[in-house]
Amino acid sequence: MPAVKYFNSERVIIMLGNFSYCNPTKLYFGDDSLEFLKDELGKYGKNVLLVYGGGSIKKNGIYDEVTEILRSAGKSVEEISGVMPNPTINKLNEGVAVARKHGADLILAVGGGSVCDYSKALSVSVNYNGDPWQKYYIDFEEPDCEIIPVGCILTMVGTGSEMNAGAVITNPEQKLKIGHVFADERIMPRFSILNPKYTLTLPHYQMAAGIYDIFNHICEQYFSGEDDNTSDYIAEALMKSVIHSSRIANKNPQDYEARSNIMWTATWALNTLISRGKTTDWMVHMLGQSAGALTDATHGMTLAAVSLPYYRHILPYGLAKFSRFAQNVWGVCPNGKTEKEIALDGLAEMESWMKELGLVMSLSELGATEEMLPDIVNGTLILDGGYKVLTTEEVAEILKESL
Amino acid sequence: MPAVKYFNSERVIIMLGNFSYCNPTKLYFGDDSLEFLKDELGKYGKNVLLVYGGGSIKKNGIYDEVTEILRSAGKSVEEISGVMPNPTINKLNEGVAVARKHGADLILAVGGGSVCDYSKALSVSVNYNGDPWQKYYIDFEEPDCEIIPVGCILTMVGTGSEMNAGAVITNPEQKLKIGHVFADERIMPRFSILNPKYTLTLPHYQMAAGIYDIFNHICEQYFSGEDDNTSDYIAEALMKSVIHSSRIANKNPQDYEARSNIMWTATWALNTLISRGKTTDWMVHMLGQSAGALTDATHGMTLAAVSLPYYRHILPYGLAKFSRFAQNVWGVCPNGKTEKEIALDGLAEMESWMKELGLVMSLSELGATEEMLPDIVNGTLILDGGYKVLTTEEVAEILKESL
Repeated sequence: MPAVKYFNSERVIIMLGNFSYCNPTKLYFGDDSLEFLKDELGKYGKNVLLVYGGGSIKKNGIYDEVTEILRSAGKSVEEISGVMPNPTINKLNEGVAVARKHGADLILAVGGGSVCDYSKALSVSVNYNGDPWQKYYIDFEEPDCEIIPVGCILTMVGTGSEMNAGAVITNPEQKLKIGHVFADERIMPRFSILNPKYTLTLPHYQMAAGIYDIFNHICEQYFSGEDDNTSDYIAEALMKSVIHSSRIANKNPQDYEARSNIMWTATWALNTLISRGKTTDWMVHMLGQSAGALTDATHGMTLAAVSLPYYRHILPYGLAKFSRFAQNVWGVCPNGKTEKEIALDGLAEMESWMKELGLVMSLSELGATEEMLPDIVNGTLILDGGYKVLTTEEVAEILKESL
Repeated sequence: MPAVKYFNSERVIIMLGNFSYCNPTKLYFGDDSLEFLKDELGKYGKNVLLVYGGGSIKKNGIYDEVTEILRSAGKSVEEISGVMPNPTINKLNEGVAVARKHGADLILAVGGGSVCDYSKALSVSVNYNGDPWQKYYIDFEEPDCEIIPVGCILTMVGTGSEMNAGAVITNPEQKLKIGHVFADERIMPRFSILNPKYTLTLPHYQMAAGIYDIFNHICEQYFSGEDDNTSDYIAEALMKSVIHSSRIANKNPQDYEARSNIMWTATWALNTLISRGKTTDWMVHMLGQSAGALTDATHGMTLAAVSLPYYRHILPYGLAKFSRFAQNVWGVCPNGKTEKEIALDGLAEMESWMKELGLVMSLSELGATEEMLPDIVNGTLILDGGYKVLTTEEVAEILKESL
């Protein structure tokens, strides 16, 4: 964590050496964690907006449990259901209208990262009188209106959304899927309830996609910077933990211990901790999200499809880190190998693990076609925090290799 | 992170599987971090109680910088100085009287862990009308009075006190040094300012003691439990980071990057994160603190003096973890060795590193004598979270080996 190190741009210098950290979300973790909802509800007003997705919570009983607790607590509840995997700006506007009419004192998200993201976007939009898409996703401004508190009950893992201030929203008309990580910690959920049992019933495809999302969140923050800092050691620890537990869960999805470790790792993979004191990359997300906006594919799978072509492309620019990754995360033995060979062996190990989990290894498996490529390229934001600032030609090349 | 695992006592079962986590302290990190004090001061009332130690902050200019910011912010400032390395109950009572008379709205700690600990003990004692020693350190109760907010400006590293709710207080008459980690997150500092530059002038002895304190905080949370969970991976990462940076700082104490990594690792070594989902040990602290109460020696050095005798004693009861420690933290090659040989090699590597840093390797170097042993044994609280619940005879044996 150097005080001053020159890197790309002045903005980045400030991020590298000096930073602030605050993460006030209260987490309740474990198979009894829903018991604490009642205490949390007591801290907020009467009007609760319950937000959820496609209705799986009605099948598995979580909806009934939660609404019973809300009823006992004397809350007046309004609902927004049908929040989609890539929540749209139209859905956000619909939620704003419902929340205003209800006078929501608390937004209670029950679902995975998309439902949490949507709820946070809602929390800064209900009291804003302009167009939230323009303000938060085009101009990337912070809210200056009152923020409605958000609480989360997680039913899927992967995104860390339960403990950060990020919210990804899609604008299908503009073919854009954009994530805004707000600086204001008041946008982080006030509380999040994490019950690993809820994740046991998830289909294997969704479980695997969530695991890869976790892993990639860590990679995005790890593959950047030349300095040797504590954050990179913690990132390696989280990667080793999720690889270990994913192999157990892949064979036995009912292994509570493995699923609980995956759930906890997911939270710490993207709650701002491991990016402290360093630049971050996020190009896999930019590529994957652009593909996701056109195909509506599962987020984690879009990341899996573009990762190896991207990492093999940037490997020469961050060779020392890819070599460290190979040795510290994958246990690659360096003896008798060049640094490039070590680095490539690490990516080969990663590829084996990805195939073992049954991840999607190409965009065409997700419905993307050659014809879509120009739009996916156009929708890819190019960031400058990683080892190589891509040209548009390189973006096109990587996406073509990912097909 | 198992849902339910039997271990010693029912209290422990609850800690293992299910837990809550909340750490709202806002951290400002870097060589410009004091700039943010002004913003934080704006959130509290006019009366500030400035708490510091032996006056080194007057020599190095930090006192002048801080008081100038307080003056510009229009604060009315009262001071408590001379907070000792092992803050006493008498000093606490003195602070209570000063804080009450001043009507303190904010307690501002400027110093290391002792000053932060003292300030937090003060924060729960000012508005309590009974004896804080009895309530918080004998009965281990939580506060039911109003808590005065605490802010910290760190000048030394090691204790994590800047981001936790713990406070160690010594009662010299009773020959007891007791730490209470409060459950109430409102006792955590509201903000902490971490400027690695402030730590550059610390004498080598204090730097080394602080580094060992960090390392041991991690060990205390790592050497416990039989399950394989994310917390242990993070603990290993923090250990590797502090070993790496300590070797750089030991050769060149002016290396800002190494000192900043050490400072950041210290915070995460003891801010509740790496103990989530598992039991913890803390017997090295119990042994070291008891010796410290009699010798008034530097905390980190008392831990260093008792560590290896303790770990070699409990090694057979936690063999798998000591073997993992040897391989994952110290890079011990397991080939052709028994698990016990691997484990012992890890402790041998640890011993070499401790000697390299110039740590105190025996209690007699700290002024302890054979005659003091019965009192040190009597003052050692025996905890039940580690691999072996010690008998009093074992405590005596380990302390004798540590002499």
